[in-house]
Amino acid sequence: MAEASRTSEARRDAVFGRWVLFSPARSRRPTDLKSHNPTNPSPGPGTGAEAPKPSCPFCAGRESECAPQIFRVPPDESLPWRIRVIENLYPALRRDVEPPPPAPEGEAEAEPGERAVRGFGFHDVVIETPRHDVRLWDLGAEGVRDVLLAYAARVRQLGEHPAVKYVQVFKNHGASAGASMAHSHSQMLGTPFVPPSVTSRLNCMKEVFDSSGNCSLCEIRSKDILISETPNFSAIVPFAASYPFEIWIIPRQHLSYFHEIEQDKGYVVWNTMGQLTVNIKLLLCCLQALDLGSLLKTMLQKLSKQLNDPPFNFMIHSAPFGLSSSCLSYTHWFLQIVPQLSVIGGFELGSGCYINPVFPEDAAKILRELDCST
Amino acid sequence: MAEASRTSEARRDAVFGRWVLFSPARSRRPTDLKSHNPTNPSPGPGTGAEAPKPSCPFCAGRESECAPQIFRVPPDESLPWRIRVIENLYPALRRDVEPPPPAPEGEAEAEPGERAVRGFGFHDVVIETPRHDVRLWDLGAEGVRDVLLAYAARVRQLGEHPAVKYVQVFKNHGASAGASMAHSHSQMLGTPFVPPSVTSRLNCMKEVFDSSGNCSLCEIRSKDILISETPNFSAIVPFAASYPFEIWIIPRQHLSYFHEIEQDKGYVVWNTMGQLTVNIKLLLCCLQALDLGSLLKTMLQKLSKQLNDPPFNFMIHSAPFGLSSSCLSYTHWFLQIVPQLSVIGGFELGSGCYINPVFPEDAAKILRELDCST
Repeated sequence: MAEASRTSEARRDAVFGRWVLFSPARSRRPTDLKSHNPTNPSPGPGTGAEAPKPSCPFCAGRESECAPQIFRVPPDESLPWRIRVIENLYPALRRDVEPPPPAPEGEAEAEPGERAVRGFGFHDVVIETPRHDVRLWDLGAEGVRDVLLAYAARVRQLGEHPAVKYVQVFKNHGASAGASMAHSHSQMLGTPFVPPSVTSRLNCMKEVFDSSGNCSLCEIRSKDILISETPNFSAIVPFAASYPFEIWIIPRQHLSYFHEIEQDKGYVVWNTMGQLTVNIKLLLCCLQALDLGSLLKTMLQKLSKQLNDPPFNFMIHSAPFGLSSSCLSYTHWFLQIVPQLSVIGGFELGSGCYINPVFPEDAAKILRELDCST
Repeated sequence: MAEASRTSEARRDAVFGRWVLFSPARSRRPTDLKSHNPTNPSPGPGTGAEAPKPSCPFCAGRESECAPQIFRVPPDESLPWRIRVIENLYPALRRDVEPPPPAPEGEAEAEPGERAVRGFGFHDVVIETPRHDVRLWDLGAEGVRDVLLAYAARVRQLGEHPAVKYVQVFKNHGASAGASMAHSHSQMLGTPFVPPSVTSRLNCMKEVFDSSGNCSLCEIRSKDILISETPNFSAIVPFAASYPFEIWIIPRQHLSYFHEIEQDKGYVVWNTMGQLTVNIKLLLCCLQALDLGSLLKTMLQKLSKQLNDPPFNFMIHSAPFGLSSSCLSYTHWFLQIVPQLSVIGGFELGSGCYINPVFPEDAAKILRELDCST
């Protein structure tokens, strides 16, 4: 359908159950939509000096100015680090207070209503590169993969704490998307409760599953909203995108947990007879992570090129820890990228509905056809 | 409790069921929190000329440049208008398309999952004053009351349309809060579905009611979070405020619908014996509206003074039309004011949890003690 012929439409998605109002009359042509607030007017490797920015504690050489390190990549301290996972110096939740008592058996949230608990939890930072002038998508596909594997490794560690119910992995890029540091980094919060959006997402996906027998994300087949596909992942503009040029990267296989993307690098193992063998399942996991790294890099490049290096957020939507196996049939993890092009106003805050001036099919076509190889 | 002694806390509210992380370490002192983005550096009556701003179609004398008028206050066209309710020139929903077919009896949302409907609905604008240099809180209490009564009158009109399920009334003040026009105005959207935040609010309040026998909002008694009280309304910083210096104005009486605040101005009526009598219920309604106008004006003045004229949104949270009488026991309307001081990042977008650096008790104390009389 040509852009010009579209008229207003309200769409509800099958993952969050959100209604979105598509109103092309409220915008110029989708291709004219650009960020007025580019995050980094002259970025990219090679444009800056190798020296750290004087005031940036995330740069190589200034590690002592940061909160404690949790782990680094590579682990060998005699080699320079490529990725560091550290504590947040200004945590929103604190690992040093007593966790709340466990909920009564079988009841996640025993009593409704007002409730206050100590601010226990974990708030970590993933420094994606030692260099101040490198953005996540300037790394090679392997570099982005390693950042994703660092997320997964830390999520697994946090999942071992009995009081941590969920880990929200996210990245804020640009001050107006919430980044207080310009140096490329991501964050994660391990919370002592299942966050409300996770609960409502699971409820919505359960409702769809109960009614159709299918997982909401496995069901997506439309070519009109597809941007790109790899053997293991699809990148789409969701049918009821809340934001213009929003992108979801979805594993094509039905998988509930992001952090299972790679359990172990040891896919070459000794078998019981003392022979070296390849553990195919683990090998596929490693390829999955590279596939995801490559697709995420491409999508961030496309958004940067198409939208004038906009501020953006990405969030990994996974399942809460310890979900019963019956829930696994309708939970499917994915990564959501939201470029910050529009302002959230009172309608969105009040109703939870969003107004999007760009139809997903139009945004997908623009991003699909955009060449980032040059 | 002194500000300095507070430590991190997670709180869940009894209206939206949202978890909010209170993290005083992430901010300076609450009194230092100011908007870096004041909406109107030299505002107020008397500072501007009486002449309309050349480019502003909301100013008196430029009515022909607007979308059609729905009604005006006063209705008498020979008098100058004080308030105009007009159609939005760039509506997010369109009144001229066919409404979606009614849902099957007893089922508001028959099938879960993806759904697209024509973008039917109403998107109206309330011009709060003919003058470009007057903000809502520069009007007298009667002027603010009349704006609120104009909202209520228009909501009642929209409620008569069988396909309109909810009306979201809201105000965006300042460009970064979503206002595309500087001239003081509010908006409302009449939607053909019950918005998701309304559904989750009602579900949460029902759960509290089922468990405690009380309405979540009638239950609020803490003096620590109270800013101000009038005979009919309380202004509080909610126990689990998502945003720093967020304010709720709540009717002290248990009332489900905002738009019933005044059904009729005719509180002096002829009785069946031909005598003039005062209809006490209607008289109280009129006093309620004046009371609300006065309290809203004071709260907006306080936010403007304390926070350096921040961009803000306010939203009226009412009940959907045609609610069964059993639901009325747990629905209670209120007005939420959200100053825009912090950026929403990936954690909030992903999890639906908010991080607030200012404890509600501290914000309430600051606002309670702030004198706006001078």
